[in-house]
Amino acid sequence: MKTTLPPKGMRDFLPREKEIREYVMNEIRGVYRSSGFEEIETSYIENVENLTGGDGGENTKLIFKILKRGEKLNWSDAKEEDDLTDLGLRFDLTLPLVRFYSNNKNELPTIFKAIQMGPVFRAERPGKGRFRAFTQCDIDIIGDESNLAEVEIILTIARALKQLDINHFKIKINDRRVLKALVTGAGFTEAEFPDIAITLDKLDKIGKEGIVKELEGKSYDKTRIEALMTASDALKEKGLASIESMCLDGYENLKEIIEVVEALKETYDIVFDHTLVRGMGYYTSTIFEIEHSDLGYSIAGGGRYDKMIGKMIGSEVPAVGFSIGFERIVDLLMAENKLKHKQTKIALIYKDGNALTSVMKMSADLREAYSAVSVYKAKKKLGKQIEQLKKYGYDGVAVMDGELEVNLFDQTV
Amino acid sequence: MKTTLPPKGMRDFLPREKEIREYVMNEIRGVYRSSGFEEIETSYIENVENLTGGDGGENTKLIFKILKRGEKLNWSDAKEEDDLTDLGLRFDLTLPLVRFYSNNKNELPTIFKAIQMGPVFRAERPGKGRFRAFTQCDIDIIGDESNLAEVEIILTIARALKQLDINHFKIKINDRRVLKALVTGAGFTEAEFPDIAITLDKLDKIGKEGIVKELEGKSYDKTRIEALMTASDALKEKGLASIESMCLDGYENLKEIIEVVEALKETYDIVFDHTLVRGMGYYTSTIFEIEHSDLGYSIAGGGRYDKMIGKMIGSEVPAVGFSIGFERIVDLLMAENKLKHKQTKIALIYKDGNALTSVMKMSADLREAYSAVSVYKAKKKLGKQIEQLKKYGYDGVAVMDGELEVNLFDQTV
Repeated sequence: MKTTLPPKGMRDFLPREKEIREYVMNEIRGVYRSSGFEEIETSYIENVENLTGGDGGENTKLIFKILKRGEKLNWSDAKEEDDLTDLGLRFDLTLPLVRFYSNNKNELPTIFKAIQMGPVFRAERPGKGRFRAFTQCDIDIIGDESNLAEVEIILTIARALKQLDINHFKIKINDRRVLKALVTGAGFTEAEFPDIAITLDKLDKIGKEGIVKELEGKSYDKTRIEALMTASDALKEKGLASIESMCLDGYENLKEIIEVVEALKETYDIVFDHTLVRGMGYYTSTIFEIEHSDLGYSIAGGGRYDKMIGKMIGSEVPAVGFSIGFERIVDLLMAENKLKHKQTKIALIYKDGNALTSVMKMSADLREAYSAVSVYKAKKKLGKQIEQLKKYGYDGVAVMDGELEVNLFDQTV
Repeated sequence: MKTTLPPKGMRDFLPREKEIREYVMNEIRGVYRSSGFEEIETSYIENVENLTGGDGGENTKLIFKILKRGEKLNWSDAKEEDDLTDLGLRFDLTLPLVRFYSNNKNELPTIFKAIQMGPVFRAERPGKGRFRAFTQCDIDIIGDESNLAEVEIILTIARALKQLDINHFKIKINDRRVLKALVTGAGFTEAEFPDIAITLDKLDKIGKEGIVKELEGKSYDKTRIEALMTASDALKEKGLASIESMCLDGYENLKEIIEVVEALKETYDIVFDHTLVRGMGYYTSTIFEIEHSDLGYSIAGGGRYDKMIGKMIGSEVPAVGFSIGFERIVDLLMAENKLKHKQTKIALIYKDGNALTSVMKMSADLREAYSAVSVYKAKKKLGKQIEQLKKYGYDGVAVMDGELEVNLFDQTV
């Protein structure tokens, strides 16, 4: 017999879970829209060379590739994997956005504020809480090189979280240029920076000693590693002010962004964190991440990527993006069971003697008063049937038996 | 340079089109829910043997198959295409629903009323108005063998269309058993029925003469073909009543369903059409289709498939489904430009002298009064900038310049 499970790492969603997912999507979408962002949709499937040729970093190793079809598929002559495939599933929403913007820029406003909400696919090794298809909820501002873009995008994401009753979180912010000044200041070359950044990104997981060990393992000069760690410790102690002389542009941007968010924020914090790296290679300056205060893990992340569109269209267009980790938010709300049930669902139960026409007319009438009405034929054990309807989320029943009366279940149960 | 277009047959959606798509989705979803249907989501990706092994008919030739990954992929030893692939993209929502129900039936009510709205993928030859990824909006009732299921599903779909201001349409209804009685009554065998049904399905396209020609081309007996056409003509003239003696079950079901819908319907019609075939092999009795009265093409279709779940779980469970052709509805509404703009979008324009903090505070204040507020820095040519904002859908501007005043554009434009 064929399996009835979805493929490994993929999921189906039962009604209760789907309702929460739709609720979360709509609340986020509402906040995004209220800040003037406009929703677009990009193709789930991309030409495979668009996916593999960009700045996708590790994600390009995780592409679900689609087999060529018909006579285009000729595997006996294939020399490499790419001869077998022409399309692939998108692994994030940024790369499709860049392609979309490049293709449609003449129809879009000079400063384009985009919403994208949809699934992305990564052939990761499946594991607990790690899925091969998951939803992202992104906003991006394209065409604005000023700090306004960062500020709008940070405040909008914060409002979206508050809208979902997530009030206590910490926005960590850094600038890739600060990070680079720190690394080159310790004597490393600019060319070595990306590789060192990959190691520094692991600070949370492997700690300071782990970082030193890994850099030594990569055969970097011990004096430089020591200088880097000393500078990093000093920076941690002295905070934002200490980077003023080190990286002027980075300092001034961070200072203004933090000041404005500080003045507008309510229940959350924004902090400069010079250890924040963010994996993607395409970030050029500001990077940020939101950490849930109680759970301690990241629920949103993003940054500025001023070079990515230029690589596609030949002229530079600045861009900033921020993405909410939708699945983690849903898990949070599922666990807290906070969702208010907004519908009043009524089951209309009819008996053998009732003509279907009058049953359907009655259900249409009931629908005027109740938000959802569903018709069922009475079973022999009516009491048991009603108990089951209650269990499956109905708020009341109306049995067609003489005078019709709607019996709402006890609201307190 | 890499292409900026989406792959052949795939689409991106600009804000205006995405807004209409979301609007249509939500209106349909609302009506479905109000009839007691509950939304689920199934995986976009299925194990490839689940896709190829079922009743998918022609669609199984159009599957986008996903290349195996890592050491599982060994194309030099591959004997057939299926050795290269383990997963595929779903081509409809019915097959995943059957798998979903089989997997979760213990957690679902005895009669399960499902909503599924999402993309499906078919590697069709791309052409005008024919896409390789498109959205379907399905409802299905699983577990009810009575006519109530057909009636609820037909009336719900009709209400969804009316909700979208589509009022004039014709519901065509038939029963596969009537069709079979017609074919076997003309002397063909039961085994020949599916093949003959494939030809009959083309009546709209190739006409009566085309049917005769195609059946003759398939070497069927001329006398039988003639008998079939004569019986078909007679049936057309006499209508529903003439099938009473020919196919009792089919007749009684059709009679009750049509009677009930007739009694409840408003601006649309329901008609028995014995030439309706519907392509999918899995339909067992009632089949239906909705034709737009002015445009003359089908905008929804479905039927009863009582055997499909049984093939997966071993015990028979009745089921009926109906699917709205979402893309056609969207095209219709785009062409009619009927969508009411519900948001009031305001652009807040600031100047060099304004501190970003006070700008952002002002935008938060404005958001209390207007549904969407977006911040822009003033350009040198302010008048031109405002004209552009108007063009891109803003309803008014507020320029930060002394006393703040919101200027709404002329509502009549």
